[in-house]
Amino acid sequence: MTTPGLVTRSDRVDAWKVSASMPVHYEIQVCADAFGLGNTALLGHAGHRAERIRRFVVVDANVLALHGDRIRSYFEHHGVEYALHAVQADETVKSLETATEIVRALDAFGIDRRREPIVVIGGGVLMDIVGLVANLYRRGTPVVRVPTTLIGLVDAGVGVKTGVNFNNHKNRLGTYFASSLTLLDRSFLVTVDRRHIANGLAEILKMALIKDARLFDLLEEYGPRLLDEKFQGTTPALERAATEVVQRAIHGMLEELQPNLWETELERVVDYGHTFSPTVEMHALPALLHGEAVCVDMALTTVLGWRRGLVGTRQRDRILAVMRSLELPSWNALLEPGLLAEALADTVRHRDGQQRLPLPAGIGEAVFVNDVTEDELTVAVDDLRRLSSAQEAVRV
Amino acid sequence: MTTPGLVTRSDRVDAWKVSASMPVHYEIQVCADAFGLGNTALLGHAGHRAERIRRFVVVDANVLALHGDRIRSYFEHHGVEYALHAVQADETVKSLETATEIVRALDAFGIDRRREPIVVIGGGVLMDIVGLVANLYRRGTPVVRVPTTLIGLVDAGVGVKTGVNFNNHKNRLGTYFASSLTLLDRSFLVTVDRRHIANGLAEILKMALIKDARLFDLLEEYGPRLLDEKFQGTTPALERAATEVVQRAIHGMLEELQPNLWETELERVVDYGHTFSPTVEMHALPALLHGEAVCVDMALTTVLGWRRGLVGTRQRDRILAVMRSLELPSWNALLEPGLLAEALADTVRHRDGQQRLPLPAGIGEAVFVNDVTEDELTVAVDDLRRLSSAQEAVRV
Ligand SMILES: NC(=O)c1ccc[n+]([C@@H]2O[C@H](COP(=O)([O-])OP(=O)(O)OC[C@H]3O[C@@H](n4cnc5c(N)ncnc54)[C@H](O)[C@@H]3O)[C@@H](O)[C@H]2O)c1
Ligand SMILES: NC(=O)c1ccc[n+]([C@@H]2O[C@H](COP(=O)([O-])OP(=O)(O)OC[C@H]3O[C@@H](n4cnc5c(N)ncnc54)[C@H](O)[C@@H]3O)[C@@H](O)[C@H]2O)c1
Ligand SMILES: [Zn+2]
Ligand SMILES: [Zn+2]
Repeated sequence: MTTPGLVTRSDRVDAWKVSASMPVHYEIQVCADAFGLGNTALLGHAGHRAERIRRFVVVDANVLALHGDRIRSYFEHHGVEYALHAVQADETVKSLETATEIVRALDAFGIDRRREPIVVIGGGVLMDIVGLVANLYRRGTPVVRVPTTLIGLVDAGVGVKTGVNFNNHKNRLGTYFASSLTLLDRSFLVTVDRRHIANGLAEILKMALIKDARLFDLLEEYGPRLLDEKFQGTTPALERAATEVVQRAIHGMLEELQPNLWETELERVVDYGHTFSPTVEMHALPALLHGEAVCVDMALTTVLGWRRGLVGTRQRDRILAVMRSLELPSWNALLEPGLLAEALADTVRHRDGQQRLPLPAGIGEAVFVNDVTEDELTVAVDDLRRLSSAQEAVRV
Repeated sequence: MTTPGLVTRSDRVDAWKVSASMPVHYEIQVCADAFGLGNTALLGHAGHRAERIRRFVVVDANVLALHGDRIRSYFEHHGVEYALHAVQADETVKSLETATEIVRALDAFGIDRRREPIVVIGGGVLMDIVGLVANLYRRGTPVVRVPTTLIGLVDAGVGVKTGVNFNNHKNRLGTYFASSLTLLDRSFLVTVDRRHIANGLAEILKMALIKDARLFDLLEEYGPRLLDEKFQGTTPALERAATEVVQRAIHGMLEELQPNLWETELERVVDYGHTFSPTVEMHALPALLHGEAVCVDMALTTVLGWRRGLVGTRQRDRILAVMRSLELPSWNALLEPGLLAEALADTVRHRDGQQRLPLPAGIGEAVFVNDVTEDELTVAVDDLRRLSSAQEAVRV
């Protein structure tokens, strides 16, 4: 056999083994102003040809209303032939239907398969949908992402997962598909409402809890003020804090993702907070945001960890206090043993037959367990209910 | 940076490059009886665990009616807990809707993410749909394929492309996703109707024309008889011919696919016959089958090649005669310059701005051209119209 990677089985001529390896490269850049007229990152890929640059741009409708002027000016200044397809995005429209509407608009605009990347400007919902569209369209079209929410900047815009909800299951349909480029521009956050900033802080807190004690300290010290000023760096100290928090969150995330981009290894520390939350989030929809559901899951698993002696009492209380100070929920009425057992069962299927449940070990480390029982969950839920209402009382 | 493949740009701490490589392995085996009770290939993946083997099986409704007994007996004999989800498959239901119906059934049955492969038993349409479902379901679930049509055996079951039609475009949405295993069992062909055997012969003829003169000779000599006996090897000579034809077609296909599994290289000889045919097939739907549309495209491009001096007159006539003897069309009323220009324009987008059009160079080789004009197409269509009706006249 002369084709490398293609092997006829030595014992027979009518069986073949095919082996190949798909290289993936992508880039993430922090930039102060993605649509500054001097920033040509969004015009790349056009290559050597003299033809007019064309871009199909999918944009969150709220972002378009608030930041449309600078987006339009940018493409007009550079003489780009572009279409702006606006989507009123939120978790309830994270569906195949929304994806197919985008495909119809894409078909109407028409793009070349490899050198005219789709541009997506929006939060995690829109990036997840458009990432899927880009993967599916002609079996793969490049895509460039400009996240506009905090969760987008530190999480959804950093990895390679795409997806939509289906049949009442969170991200039931999706793929792994790397965007060629993500531009992280914090200036978009200025118009994000307070609750959605907190929502992003939940995913940052996740990174802190499982692998970065310094990040936890930063959140404890600066979290509330970063929430107030929406990561705009309004004082030198806050600028330093905002920069370091975002950088640590992203760097930690990439360290975990890069060696396991296709989740060959199903024990993932970054799945912390994502064991019970997918089911809770879908059942609560639209009451709980993604990060809020994750935070409730982290509160529960912090208590589980505390019960197992992995987390000290003082650590437990610091964690719950930080959640509170970030205006994130640590309790939800859906936390009852029946639903949690259902959630765990689905996660077990997702993790191929085992719990592989990350629990915090102190602050800044995690361990995996496979033996959480329903009784244990029932007790932890009771503890958490008490702790949350006590905290509530303290606050009042 | 200690994580290999994750690089912070040397000039700044707030930009990252991620590099990774996804290994892909899959296997294709010819076997005399995929559902023979001794064949455990479909039970693999179950691994070491003592639990009951579970399989979600998607099966073509016609195949279920004709071969359901042996399929059911197989799973029952082995004590497998299985669901049979039947789909009445043909090109008109190659859609996202059919895919999502399958997902609903899959959700209802429930499978573990990595070790309970979906099994698909059917033709190219069903394999393409289920391949997509498997890729999307929880971002990737293994799938095992048992093709039951000739096109499935020599083409759709061999590669890694999945897809559905959308917005009247052939395979507009799809992915590259390798099945873990394909079992090629010619015995299914006995119930395939004559027209669909011819349909598969069109893709075999494609392989012959672009890279395998010996395969062309085999088709010229044995094609009509293989069509009559549906590749069942009813005489020793036909058994040898059927075996060699199938093996050469698959081997040639894999030689072309393996080094270019993700179509990084857009000049693909196996795209021969697939330049104009996607649009023709979709416009003619359901009048033309996939292989028939491909054959019409090959007839047209044979004439194009002949006009350019790449194919001799005698070669041209041999090619058209083999098409005829395989009961494949070399002409269709949709072949008019307007539609062909539209088809070419879409293919150019698909091939990233260039025609990259494979033309036969004699029999058994191909060249790529980028300069086919509408005038040239108009003349070739006229030639082909004449040649086809002349051939028709000779036959009568
Ligand atoms: N792919 C991944 O790896 C990954 C990681 C984390 C989260 N996610 C997904 O991300 C989603 C959550 O993302 P999200 O919180 O960004 O939700 P989102 O995209 O729905 O955005 C939240 C809200 O903010 C609005 N908005 C966006 N940018 C704005 C701006 N600059 N100013 C004002 N309003 C703005 C949106 O219109 C929306 O109403 C979830 O579906 C989650 O599953 C994916
Ligand atoms: N993914 C790829 O690489 C690839 C390659 C070639 C073709 N294709 C796709 O394959 C499709 C065509 O495949 P096809 O021709 O197999 O179509 P198909 O799947 O529609 O099958 C043709 C017909 O045969 C019936 N059938 C299937 N097996 C049978 C059996 N054993 N006995 C009796 N009837 C049977 C089916 O019910 C159907 O009516 C096209 O959509 C084409 O795009 C894909
Ligand atoms: Zn998350
Ligand atoms: Zn084909």
